[in-house]
Amino acid sequence: MGNGYVGARTPRREDARLLTGKSRYVASVRLPGMAYAHVVRSPVAHGRLLGCDTKAARAVEGVLDVILPADAAGLRLPCVNVMPGQLMTSYPVLDDAVRYVGQPLAVVVAETPQAARDAADLLDLDLDELPAVVGAERALSDDAPLLHPDLGSNVLFDFVMGDDDCAAAVEGAEHVVEMTFRMGRVSPYPLEPRGVVASYASYAGDELTVHLSSQAPHHAREHLAEALGLSHDRVRVVSRDTGGGFGAKEHLYPDETLACLAAIRLGRPVSWSEPPGDRLFATLPARQAVHRGRLALDGDGRFVAMDVDVLGDLGAHPSNVGGSTFAVTATLLPGPYRFDRFAVRVRGVVTTTTPTGSYRGFGQPEAALTRERLIDEAARRLGLDPVELRLRNMLRPDELPYTTRVFQTYDSGDYPRALRTLRDLVRPVEKDDGRRRGVGYSCHVESTGMGPSMDMKAINAAAGGYETAILRMEQDGSVVVSSGVVSMGQGIETALAQIAADRVGVPIERVRVVLGDTATTPYSSIGAVASRSLAVGGGALVRAAVRLRDRLLALAAHRLEADAGDLEIADGSVRVQGDPRASLTLRDLATSAWRGWDLPEGFAPGLEERVSYDPEGYTFAYGAHAAAVAVDPETGAVEVERYWVVNDAGVLVNPTVVEGQLTGGVAQGIGQALTEEIGYTDDGQPIAEYLPPTTREVPGIEVVLMETPSPLTPGGMKGVGEAGTIGPPAAIANAVAAALPEIAAQVTDVPLTPAVVWSLLRA
Amino acid sequence: MGNGYVGARTPRREDARLLTGKSRYVASVRLPGMAYAHVVRSPVAHGRLLGCDTKAARAVEGVLDVILPADAAGLRLPCVNVMPGQLMTSYPVLDDAVRYVGQPLAVVVAETPQAARDAADLLDLDLDELPAVVGAERALSDDAPLLHPDLGSNVLFDFVMGDDDCAAAVEGAEHVVEMTFRMGRVSPYPLEPRGVVASYASYAGDELTVHLSSQAPHHAREHLAEALGLSHDRVRVVSRDTGGGFGAKEHLYPDETLACLAAIRLGRPVSWSEPPGDRLFATLPARQAVHRGRLALDGDGRFVAMDVDVLGDLGAHPSNVGGSTFAVTATLLPGPYRFDRFAVRVRGVVTTTTPTGSYRGFGQPEAALTRERLIDEAARRLGLDPVELRLRNMLRPDELPYTTRVFQTYDSGDYPRALRTLRDLVRPVEKDDGRRRGVGYSCHVESTGMGPSMDMKAINAAAGGYETAILRMEQDGSVVVSSGVVSMGQGIETALAQIAADRVGVPIERVRVVLGDTATTPYSSIGAVASRSLAVGGGALVRAAVRLRDRLLALAAHRLEADAGDLEIADGSVRVQGDPRASLTLRDLATSAWRGWDLPEGFAPGLEERVSYDPEGYTFAYGAHAAAVAVDPETGAVEVERYWVVNDAGVLVNPTVVEGQLTGGVAQGIGQALTEEIGYTDDGQPIAEYLPPTTREVPGIEVVLMETPSPLTPGGMKGVGEAGTIGPPAAIANAVAAALPEIAAQVTDVPLTPAVVWSLLRA
Repeated sequence: MGNGYVGARTPRREDARLLTGKSRYVASVRLPGMAYAHVVRSPVAHGRLLGCDTKAARAVEGVLDVILPADAAGLRLPCVNVMPGQLMTSYPVLDDAVRYVGQPLAVVVAETPQAARDAADLLDLDLDELPAVVGAERALSDDAPLLHPDLGSNVLFDFVMGDDDCAAAVEGAEHVVEMTFRMGRVSPYPLEPRGVVASYASYAGDELTVHLSSQAPHHAREHLAEALGLSHDRVRVVSRDTGGGFGAKEHLYPDETLACLAAIRLGRPVSWSEPPGDRLFATLPARQAVHRGRLALDGDGRFVAMDVDVLGDLGAHPSNVGGSTFAVTATLLPGPYRFDRFAVRVRGVVTTTTPTGSYRGFGQPEAALTRERLIDEAARRLGLDPVELRLRNMLRPDELPYTTRVFQTYDSGDYPRALRTLRDLVRPVEKDDGRRRGVGYSCHVESTGMGPSMDMKAINAAAGGYETAILRMEQDGSVVVSSGVVSMGQGIETALAQIAADRVGVPIERVRVVLGDTATTPYSSIGAVASRSLAVGGGALVRAAVRLRDRLLALAAHRLEADAGDLEIADGSVRVQGDPRASLTLRDLATSAWRGWDLPEGFAPGLEERVSYDPEGYTFAYGAHAAAVAVDPETGAVEVERYWVVNDAGVLVNPTVVEGQLTGGVAQGIGQALTEEIGYTDDGQPIAEYLPPTTREVPGIEVVLMETPSPLTPGGMKGVGEAGTIGPPAAIANAVAAALPEIAAQVTDVPLTPAVVWSLLRA
Repeated sequence: MGNGYVGARTPRREDARLLTGKSRYVASVRLPGMAYAHVVRSPVAHGRLLGCDTKAARAVEGVLDVILPADAAGLRLPCVNVMPGQLMTSYPVLDDAVRYVGQPLAVVVAETPQAARDAADLLDLDLDELPAVVGAERALSDDAPLLHPDLGSNVLFDFVMGDDDCAAAVEGAEHVVEMTFRMGRVSPYPLEPRGVVASYASYAGDELTVHLSSQAPHHAREHLAEALGLSHDRVRVVSRDTGGGFGAKEHLYPDETLACLAAIRLGRPVSWSEPPGDRLFATLPARQAVHRGRLALDGDGRFVAMDVDVLGDLGAHPSNVGGSTFAVTATLLPGPYRFDRFAVRVRGVVTTTTPTGSYRGFGQPEAALTRERLIDEAARRLGLDPVELRLRNMLRPDELPYTTRVFQTYDSGDYPRALRTLRDLVRPVEKDDGRRRGVGYSCHVESTGMGPSMDMKAINAAAGGYETAILRMEQDGSVVVSSGVVSMGQGIETALAQIAADRVGVPIERVRVVLGDTATTPYSSIGAVASRSLAVGGGALVRAAVRLRDRLLALAAHRLEADAGDLEIADGSVRVQGDPRASLTLRDLATSAWRGWDLPEGFAPGLEERVSYDPEGYTFAYGAHAAAVAVDPETGAVEVERYWVVNDAGVLVNPTVVEGQLTGGVAQGIGQALTEEIGYTDDGQPIAEYLPPTTREVPGIEVVLMETPSPLTPGGMKGVGEAGTIGPPAAIANAVAAALPEIAAQVTDVPLTPAVVWSLLRA
């Protein structure tokens, strides 16, 4: 099977428009009569909105509406993934109970964005302030104020997974390494800010059309309909180009929901775009957690047991994804290793900070940091080579499929080969410039291809979900692919076109890919998240393509009076192999199929396949990363000088796209490891200083791709969208620890800013 | 089956927007950067465009482009229905050979409509004029100029159907009535003029989006793609509300195609709307034909044979539908009667007039006029009652299904009962005001539900075609219907909603109907023509609804551990009959289906059915009409004083809609009978005087509905959209002949204008 498109370095077709200013972002949507919304946010971390005088605001010329909490009573957004025992499963879109700086308190709608902002400044908010609660550990303390007094606790869920006797195994082991890790709060930073244009037609057949920068338009559609009390069939969400998501745009936010409410109230289209200054506290951040981990080894360096206490900071309330990032951390903590016993406790607590949500990697960089740092520290204490210690405990290919003690079934791969390949790549930097140098490694197994569909009442991280592909051959032989996944710059359009061209047997130029519109694409309950677009969406497409091809061949066999097995598709025709005269053009066959002319018995008219693929289980990619760092002992500044990645994401559809995904992910991981963090003052004010890495902070990254097909997914693909982000915090922290053995045991927190490293060195 | 919606007089849901100015016509589409096209038309009937000086036009401020025939070389539109032996199967969109007044010769595109018109006036057309050819009989004469010299003839096709020995049977019969009928050229007159807004995005993934006032958006999409050399997958046609079509908008015209070409050339959206003054020569007219007919009877008044020579005026070249109206005339000429022998010859000739096309009734009013006038004239000559003569020769219900001698298989009905019912309704007007009065009858069988799909290389009128319905239940239990048919004011949206609500078992308010967008609706090769939307599109929906309901019940049976046969759908739930506690809401079931949760073995996720219905054959509606007229002998003016219709269109989905369709159709038929005609001067200039009937010319119309289900279509529906137009010319002409027996044999032509009647009376 295949015509050479799968595996080829096909140029990304979306770049033609993305790089020439012709992309279809929400901000380019201009509708007649469009008004502009401005969201007014809380300046305090905790308190109560006692009242709001809107008179001066309403008097501003061009102001059309002011929406206060009372106007949005009952408007709630749900937590999609509810953890066992979770106390709160939805939250109000607009609330007079204030729990974080940046929480929406009101919306002003006006003829121009300027008028809306001007009027917003004149709203007189009467706020009764309460003490802030910053940090998950603070939220646990007995004297911490309760954020949701009716719930009776700041701990919204608390559950354990794994072996009951794990603690005993740890405590009875020969060696135990115990460390506590703190992961900073990081913020996704897409090039296109969040935005929405909502329009509502209020005749019989009321219809809300929402242009939304989203990774999950079907998901947004459901939640908008439910929140606004609209029939699902009357809501359409369009997300044609999403200018980056990184997880931030899988959520439906209060802001976007309120813009839709404004459009319904006003009967005019309403546009809202996140002001740049709002991003750090209005776009959901992620990753803030404290892990207390113990790794137990026997005298031979064998991993006897591991237990981890994951304390997750939910922010003010559970976001759409609730605590599921922390649960994913838990399920991926074992990584590519064998443990006799394993256990994890997961708690989610509320603090007076912005709710935390999804971010590329979704709990997995945190899992890797804790595990891989514990391993390096164990190697240091036992005097073993860290790579050798890893290899000694690593699952071998012949052990797969392998189910971990937290119920993840790794499907395929060769983890030791990845690490050995990596070791062979690594070339430490040798230079005498007064800086101290070290190399660090990290390995991970990554859950991708989210599935199967099941009613997740319990332990697992997220509801899985199938994908559906619609594949049509038009009467002229051109091919249209439609899928519920979303194009957000990751190259999925190109990859799906490659699969369709390859499997059907047409030139890729004849394949069109339609994504990002609930009116024209099949349902996707999840969207373009969790590195699943290619594995699940592409898997469905593989199946659809096989069926479409079979139908074409059956039709040709009927028309040519030949056996379908003797036919091949080439050069725009179906022909009998070895008999070039016996052939029919695809145009002829497709016209016949669509017109219903001369079809075989039982052959329904048309040439369109609609196939769902519901995975039996997750598929698991994996990777091994290494970083070479130089630390300036005078300033504490860490430079990543070299970076190596070995990654296996199953069948490679487009190696160039895969390398791009890995490289971009590593850059984000370096940011998390070294510079990026949203800090808070003790009274809950976010510190507006955020430093994503630039090309100066990101070295050249050497990538080697392995290719172990997934036995689960049609086509054998696994996901790769998040892989690059998982390894860097662990590899870089290990490299810093290797460079500075005297403080190695204290290298536990990310980001490792100059101030952090300098303080450790000075202590 | 059924929840009472089918058969109910449900208010038309589309009226809420159509009557409140919220309809979505093409003229309401406003796109950023939109330019305006003006089509420049030939002022002469025949000749050659030798050149065109565009300098002055291009100098007008705001002019963006001028398109001449050389710029559109190779751009051709096809004849969809090609008659046997037809000489010409496509025509150029822009041609320097001029063959009718109004033929497009150039397009001017400018920033404003006014600038485009002003510039158009400055185009200097250098035209070499040739002699005109007006009238099909003139085109046949030996000295007539050839319009297409390369074809060698003005006769583009000439074929016969029926019995070879028919002429002999006629000539050997006891009584033969021979008459020649001339049908005037009439013009469809939709409330929304033709119009288009085309926009072209020219990045990788080039896409032409065309808002088009059309009855057949998928059909238009194919022909636009082929004409413009675009891949089908890159063309989208949107026709959300079409403000009346009457057949005129099943064609893709040169005007609309040129607007698309202009949008591609310019890289900006281009709007074109037909100026009111252009309609009579730019929107395709119809019905111009000359019939020479002979009806042969034996001594008992039995119909021995009938033969007819149909001479059709194609205008300058075959339109999209070519000569198929004349072929439909031929196949429907036998009507509801038995003939031992039957034959018809059909010729299509070209003249220097606007090409003729589709018009509501599509050849059938012409067939009825010829047949029913011959019958009345025979009755008059034989001294028989015209109704009795009809009943004597009419097919009885027990003779159906019955295949005529021109291969039409009438499926079901009771033709004599319709005529008897009509006779009982008729109450002649008795008044002594100096006018002469008469009552006339006409009966017809009408071909509806166009199908089956087959490659029409030969005799039949038009390619048939299946329809596909997509029926989805959303997670909240709301239902979406999508179909390739088009809403053009005929009520199909309401009828499809009734069927879906009835068959699935949900309130009609929960059903949404999506039509008129090639991106969101299933393929329809034909569109909303030929009274087929309900019979074929609705038939597909019935099948989809049965499947959706079965799937719901299967899922509920699995979940409730019940037998599907014991379940019923009511009040938003599926419940076990007799056990009100054992039930599941549709919301619960639909959510489970879409999420893929707890499904029976082999049950694919989702709750969407996509079903095609490809009719085994046409279904045949029928009707009987009667008119009471008063003729003023001083002026020749004919007034229709009363009008009665008995119609059987199979199962009635919405009697109010059916009555509305019949009443509107009769009004159009009265126009054709008495007032409407596009005349031409001898040099081919159209006479710009056109008189559609007003409420003063249309009396109250009494409608009685019969209901014989079609045994062919799922749901038993037949078509009714055109029925009203078929009877009036014949019934009114018969009434005039009855009122004026001294000139009865000369009452042959429509329209029967005062001048025509006065001239007959004076002769």
